[in-house]
Amino acid sequence: MRLLIKNGTIISAESEYVADILIEGEKITAIGTGLGNGADEVIDASGKYVFPGGVDEHVHYGSFGSLTFETTNAAVVGGTTTIVDFAPQPKGLSIKESVKKHNETLAEGIAMADYSFHGMVMDPTEDLIEEILTLPEAGISTLKFFMAYKGSPFMVEDDIIFKALQVAKKAGVTIMVHAENGEIVDILQKQLIAEGKTDPIYHAASRPPLVEAEATARAIYLAELANSPLFVVHVTCKESMELVRDTYMRGLPVYGETCTHYLTLTEDNLAKPNFEGAKYVCSPPIRPQEHLDALWEALSRGWLLAVGSDHCANEGGFENDKKKGIDDFTKIPNGCPGVQDRLALLWTYGVETEKITPQKFVDIFATTPAKVCGLFPRKGQIAVGSDADIVIFDPNWKGTITVKDSYHGSDYNSFEGMDQIGRAEKVFLRGRLTAENGKFVGEKGQGKYIKMKPFGLCYDNFKE
Amino acid sequence: MRLLIKNGTIISAESEYVADILIEGEKITAIGTGLGNGADEVIDASGKYVFPGGVDEHVHYGSFGSLTFETTNAAVVGGTTTIVDFAPQPKGLSIKESVKKHNETLAEGIAMADYSFHGMVMDPTEDLIEEILTLPEAGISTLKFFMAYKGSPFMVEDDIIFKALQVAKKAGVTIMVHAENGEIVDILQKQLIAEGKTDPIYHAASRPPLVEAEATARAIYLAELANSPLFVVHVTCKESMELVRDTYMRGLPVYGETCTHYLTLTEDNLAKPNFEGAKYVCSPPIRPQEHLDALWEALSRGWLLAVGSDHCANEGGFENDKKKGIDDFTKIPNGCPGVQDRLALLWTYGVETEKITPQKFVDIFATTPAKVCGLFPRKGQIAVGSDADIVIFDPNWKGTITVKDSYHGSDYNSFEGMDQIGRAEKVFLRGRLTAENGKFVGEKGQGKYIKMKPFGLCYDNFKE
Amino acid sequence: MRLLIKNGTIISAESEYVADILIEGEKITAIGTGLGNGADEVIDASGKYVFPGGVDEHVHYGSFGSLTFETTNAAVVGGTTTIVDFAPQPKGLSIKESVKKHNETLAEGIAMADYSFHGMVMDPTEDLIEEILTLPEAGISTLKFFMAYKGSPFMVEDDIIFKALQVAKKAGVTIMVHAENGEIVDILQKQLIAEGKTDPIYHAASRPPLVEAEATARAIYLAELANSPLFVVHVTCKESMELVRDTYMRGLPVYGETCTHYLTLTEDNLAKPNFEGAKYVCSPPIRPQEHLDALWEALSRGWLLAVGSDHCANEGGFENDKKKGIDDFTKIPNGCPGVQDRLALLWTYGVETEKITPQKFVDIFATTPAKVCGLFPRKGQIAVGSDADIVIFDPNWKGTITVKDSYHGSDYNSFEGMDQIGRAEKVFLRGRLTAENGKFVGEKGQGKYIKMKPFGLCYDNFKE
Amino acid sequence: MRLLIKNGTIISAESEYVADILIEGEKITAIGTGLGNGADEVIDASGKYVFPGGVDEHVHYGSFGSLTFETTNAAVVGGTTTIVDFAPQPKGLSIKESVKKHNETLAEGIAMADYSFHGMVMDPTEDLIEEILTLPEAGISTLKFFMAYKGSPFMVEDDIIFKALQVAKKAGVTIMVHAENGEIVDILQKQLIAEGKTDPIYHAASRPPLVEAEATARAIYLAELANSPLFVVHVTCKESMELVRDTYMRGLPVYGETCTHYLTLTEDNLAKPNFEGAKYVCSPPIRPQEHLDALWEALSRGWLLAVGSDHCANEGGFENDKKKGIDDFTKIPNGCPGVQDRLALLWTYGVETEKITPQKFVDIFATTPAKVCGLFPRKGQIAVGSDADIVIFDPNWKGTITVKDSYHGSDYNSFEGMDQIGRAEKVFLRGRLTAENGKFVGEKGQGKYIKMKPFGLCYDNFKE
Repeated sequence: MRLLIKNGTIISAESEYVADILIEGEKITAIGTGLGNGADEVIDASGKYVFPGGVDEHVHYGSFGSLTFETTNAAVVGGTTTIVDFAPQPKGLSIKESVKKHNETLAEGIAMADYSFHGMVMDPTEDLIEEILTLPEAGISTLKFFMAYKGSPFMVEDDIIFKALQVAKKAGVTIMVHAENGEIVDILQKQLIAEGKTDPIYHAASRPPLVEAEATARAIYLAELANSPLFVVHVTCKESMELVRDTYMRGLPVYGETCTHYLTLTEDNLAKPNFEGAKYVCSPPIRPQEHLDALWEALSRGWLLAVGSDHCANEGGFENDKKKGIDDFTKIPNGCPGVQDRLALLWTYGVETEKITPQKFVDIFATTPAKVCGLFPRKGQIAVGSDADIVIFDPNWKGTITVKDSYHGSDYNSFEGMDQIGRAEKVFLRGRLTAENGKFVGEKGQGKYIKMKPFGLCYDNFKE
Repeated sequence: MRLLIKNGTIISAESEYVADILIEGEKITAIGTGLGNGADEVIDASGKYVFPGGVDEHVHYGSFGSLTFETTNAAVVGGTTTIVDFAPQPKGLSIKESVKKHNETLAEGIAMADYSFHGMVMDPTEDLIEEILTLPEAGISTLKFFMAYKGSPFMVEDDIIFKALQVAKKAGVTIMVHAENGEIVDILQKQLIAEGKTDPIYHAASRPPLVEAEATARAIYLAELANSPLFVVHVTCKESMELVRDTYMRGLPVYGETCTHYLTLTEDNLAKPNFEGAKYVCSPPIRPQEHLDALWEALSRGWLLAVGSDHCANEGGFENDKKKGIDDFTKIPNGCPGVQDRLALLWTYGVETEKITPQKFVDIFATTPAKVCGLFPRKGQIAVGSDADIVIFDPNWKGTITVKDSYHGSDYNSFEGMDQIGRAEKVFLRGRLTAENGKFVGEKGQGKYIKMKPFGLCYDNFKE
Repeated sequence: MRLLIKNGTIISAESEYVADILIEGEKITAIGTGLGNGADEVIDASGKYVFPGGVDEHVHYGSFGSLTFETTNAAVVGGTTTIVDFAPQPKGLSIKESVKKHNETLAEGIAMADYSFHGMVMDPTEDLIEEILTLPEAGISTLKFFMAYKGSPFMVEDDIIFKALQVAKKAGVTIMVHAENGEIVDILQKQLIAEGKTDPIYHAASRPPLVEAEATARAIYLAELANSPLFVVHVTCKESMELVRDTYMRGLPVYGETCTHYLTLTEDNLAKPNFEGAKYVCSPPIRPQEHLDALWEALSRGWLLAVGSDHCANEGGFENDKKKGIDDFTKIPNGCPGVQDRLALLWTYGVETEKITPQKFVDIFATTPAKVCGLFPRKGQIAVGSDADIVIFDPNWKGTITVKDSYHGSDYNSFEGMDQIGRAEKVFLRGRLTAENGKFVGEKGQGKYIKMKPFGLCYDNFKE
Repeated sequence: MRLLIKNGTIISAESEYVADILIEGEKITAIGTGLGNGADEVIDASGKYVFPGGVDEHVHYGSFGSLTFETTNAAVVGGTTTIVDFAPQPKGLSIKESVKKHNETLAEGIAMADYSFHGMVMDPTEDLIEEILTLPEAGISTLKFFMAYKGSPFMVEDDIIFKALQVAKKAGVTIMVHAENGEIVDILQKQLIAEGKTDPIYHAASRPPLVEAEATARAIYLAELANSPLFVVHVTCKESMELVRDTYMRGLPVYGETCTHYLTLTEDNLAKPNFEGAKYVCSPPIRPQEHLDALWEALSRGWLLAVGSDHCANEGGFENDKKKGIDDFTKIPNGCPGVQDRLALLWTYGVETEKITPQKFVDIFATTPAKVCGLFPRKGQIAVGSDADIVIFDPNWKGTITVKDSYHGSDYNSFEGMDQIGRAEKVFLRGRLTAENGKFVGEKGQGKYIKMKPFGLCYDNFKE
């Protein structure tokens, strides 16, 4: 099967030019002009942008009460052809066993986007440290720790992060942290509840920027002490972003991502009436406008590398899950769906407002996440030899984001009613058309498990 | 009794001038020229410097295995007329009870310098937080927490420091921290011992500057979150000093001190043969030269406020205490004697080398420590109405520091063999001659307990 | 003649205490309690503050069209007993000749406050550089250059400042700069006038903060290249203050002052109707509120050292001088009177609002300016042996600043109508009562010329 | 003519992959696998790297006594297919006229690489400012000013740079500056010569880093005041690099390049015996090692954008030109040849030592210079539609740089004797083989004048 996408304007992380793309089987085999002798199918992309399918390096499917891979069509409909899921670690299982089990139970034969797995430490034992050395053999090259959630079994102390950092660099595993000071969150939560401050808006007050900044600073000190790379997930505030930026400036391999909602939703949403604020409860919390501005600038200037969705569609949605916290914000299940809208939000609120260039959009949406996760060059670019994961994008489409068009399976959309400019007109996964104009046209189980290679981007500037 | 000190060159924290000082009873009642009609005794201080008796805001008498107030004559012989001791908290006792007991058992009727007590949290319970409000009534306005010493009952988590900071500002209590990350020290100690690195020099390797800097940064974040003043004791390294400096620059009431040995002894001492290095084991450890340079600059420019001795003379000294760790540096009891040599070291290695001016010397030796601890203006200056705690200093004396001349009671002196320029020729405690040319000429029990006032210097720039 | 000031609360730059002050002739001879046997006169200062007479290190008498020493009673009425005037340099005269001539023609036998002279370069020739070495012999230890005022003979290029800095350190002369980029001011003025923007408010637009910051940065580079101390006069904006602060932080001997109007008047005043804005035209211009805040913080934290008045009372005042620029703001003569109100403004808007402590007030009003100008310890403190320049200050007085009470001789007061808290009840110049409750009670010609000593405060941290 | 380059490993600024490149006429028409049906010529590049021909944005041909376009074969032999020359401005000619004349007289029909022209202001008149608006019409979108060379007609004052910046942004012209404080250089030169310090090493002493940093800071202030983009050419020292970096961090469109010799030659070379040091005299001067390290880090991290050669081959070479300064370093003609060795130096001392990745090499060697100069996407990348300027690079070749292999026409090579790893095996200019294994195989006059587009890369983050 030879497929030709003709005359599109190809956007890469560094350039933009008009050319044809020839796909043979699952791979891109040529980019050129006047290609196409003998193509089985020709698609005209004149006047459209053509860019690599997205790589969302931060999704939750089947962890923390979220819906599972049955709803991964949301990703491809939204132009994201590869998702990197955080595989939860059941008590007593190793990381490799956890990933294997998570894949076999929930993903294999079901996933509708290609996928990969981060390790996510939820049963932090001494054995874990030794296991890190063998993770890459199993295709796992990233490992996340939680510095938050006091009272849960997965909040870790500094010692285990430090030991993990010491070992990880030997194997090229990238240590990731959820950086919030769990001790202080716990005190603030209790103080707020004791004062009768139970509404969703107090979720933000219980996790102020300094709580995130402190943990970020601490993780950075641990990385510097261990002389090891570090990746800070969901950076949400100016203070933490500046820590990541300034540490990198000092020559250390410390990096971070942010997420779509931290770029597009302000803290005010948490104060919406009728408990609507609960729809926006995630941790760290969404922030006031000044932080959004700082995060966009950070992306534009390369101080943060990528934008994940932190997709987490609660099974019970607003009615059955979020409302559990109606009398106590600490009981509201965390997380918001977002994987489907990542492209639309970055384009509409980033490119269209000139906060970022189209090149930078491709960079943070696809290319760099693939590099961070050891999936590049197979994923994340339109280039000869890469998987034919391709979005044909109509920049002229105009619409509104709504749960009615969402495949994520939950009963609300955090971005409900927001304007959308441009749309993924056609999405190809390894050469097969899989979504068209907001509709899923692929098949259940079409997604493949892609193993990570070790020594991802965070090791680029690393010296032992 | 009217005593006149004539013709001395008075040094204050801001000036220098020749004048007579008239003392009536325990107080200074006049400074002038041609004073002295009817003085009972006249002392000629021509050609000598005259400055306030020292205030050493960091000493240990009777805690951590140190000798008690029986050896406080070491302070006055060395020109320090007021010491601020860290009163240990026995399990089950409140801070106020601990201070009372420590005073009654060990200090009262014995002390040979005036003295005051910091609270030192060693049994961190929830009750403590409430007690903070009433500490000033008992004359206690400072409270120290340990962020180090994993495995001991007194290493605290972030939560209790944070709560203490929240409450302390209501009562004008200054929270102090010993800032080292106990978790990481513990790992490094175990890793070093496992590698057979048991000598004293590895004490330094187990507590590198970043371990101190991380804890300092964390304490500062907690203070900022609680919006409360903070005082960091024994800052030893460039990194921590810069954190204190830069935080103050941002407008926050965060301050710090350093100690004599961090200014005058380098890490190399820990490598001395025949286990001699053990004599220099204290925590945080002494550092390489670049840190000494940074600390002197910090004092000169006001980025650190004061210099304590962290005096801690082990009862068993080198032979019976330090040698406990001959096979394992982690077993070496911490602490070095220093209260007697603080003046000599600051003068010889600070003033004489032009690292600090004589005015700055008085500032860090006497005036500012008194202000930090709520003892000013009674202590810390030569001024009408203040206690007549006075040093007549001969700047021309030259000698060598040696344990033979030391009153501290331990069997070694960490500064053994170092040159000394200048000496306290006469030391007056509340108007009474109490030391002369390195000899104690006062009486046991002459020292008075001086209660602290709340809202010390750390509250000067504080706004709720 | 023995005068006793009894029971006042003495404020120094570091302390506060109640004591009597004994004055014999022109000097303070004793400070104590119960002094006064045989005093010829006793003044009760109970309930009053007593502090050193002010040292205003930035005044213009008889330069740039300002009134001369006939109006220096304004200084003493306002509690300032020493003024340091910028002596203009007529074409062809050396600095020493200029100072001599200025003194003999305008000051001697007329001045009503003690006074000293800065050199002010207005005829920048090569001879000047050589003369610097001999300035201290003539009692001149400071020398100011103008980086602004394109078109005038006194705006200098970088080369002469650099050469002056190279030479000055050999003689202990402190180089001072008026830091504004004259080239850019000139362009902006012409562009604004060409656009019909002729009102006083455009004076600010023609000299924005960056114009000052650039010149400040440049002067600092020159000082660093020459390895020589630098003092930046009238720092008005956050940007310049931060340059001075950060350079000092890097270890260089760079310092600065600000002036009263930059602390208390915002740019809005320049927009007052009926050409009233012209009353506030001075260079650099007054700034928006954020800069005022930054300057107060800088004083409080020691990043700027002193507050001068930049007193410059135009002979023709508003009606005959300022109105020359009614059609063109560039023609408005610069300068505002201020020497009389410096104490009142610093106390009312600094101490009373808790922006600075009473100690810091004394520091920036008297002590440090005296040190910068080589007049300390004779001037700037209440201490035995110093001149008996003393203010008895009633902190309870309340009133309003008005030109009616002003001795400065011009027809308006820039601070007209502003509240004043506290007043100099009695002002003594070298032991003689010279002002009382806002009235001058001294004599014309009572002021003495005080020669500067070289190697003032800016040399304290200097190393060749 | 259809040419196929097969199986090479293509390096772009973001990626690396194996593919064939199809060239039709002067353009790249396809990149793919298994291409080549019907190619007229097939070149096997297996095991070789293939990357875009270099863009050297900083060369001097025919200005300042340098050889002219007769020697531009040096560029293509060294893998640089496009050079951007600084066209000198004769007195009385406009910039457009100067470029036209320079092109017609010296380049057209002679050049052997494609070329473009910066405007270079050497006759700074008021007319210039107005002309800036029309420069882009003539294909000139960059304009350089000299802040150095006192005594020459082309050293400019701040005013003209400021006015140029104000106007340039309207037309999308990028203002460039040679940043050294000419006043201070002049003084230092005279002082050194007066002290008998006439050897080449004193060239460095006469232009220390702070002289460059000051001018860089000043240019940045002017750009900020004018709110206009700025490009600093040949950044040579840590201080200036940090200014560019930190300004960009503050959100301003300020950028810079460095040059090959600042990355690979230390100041020590200036001290070589037998006047050999003169071979290294260029301005700003080469620096001590710490600056080289800082510049490499800056490139690696994106704080500087590009590396030019500042190629300037003196007609008289060492014997007839450089020796003019044998008794006085200020008389040594500035400039060194370098265009031919840029690739070799960046690869050998950057890529091979792992200071930069191969991707970053392509970025600073070709892609970003093309973007800065408005030549992208035609130049600077291997992409469909771009000019077929291609280097086939043999990474295994090893040799030594020597003047014997140099085409630059001067009698010495500043990099003589340095190791070289890798070589441009084949260089194609718009599809035609033009150099092979260090030999020029093209034709005189083959180079085309490429006009710049306005609003180059420096405008990417610019907002009016």
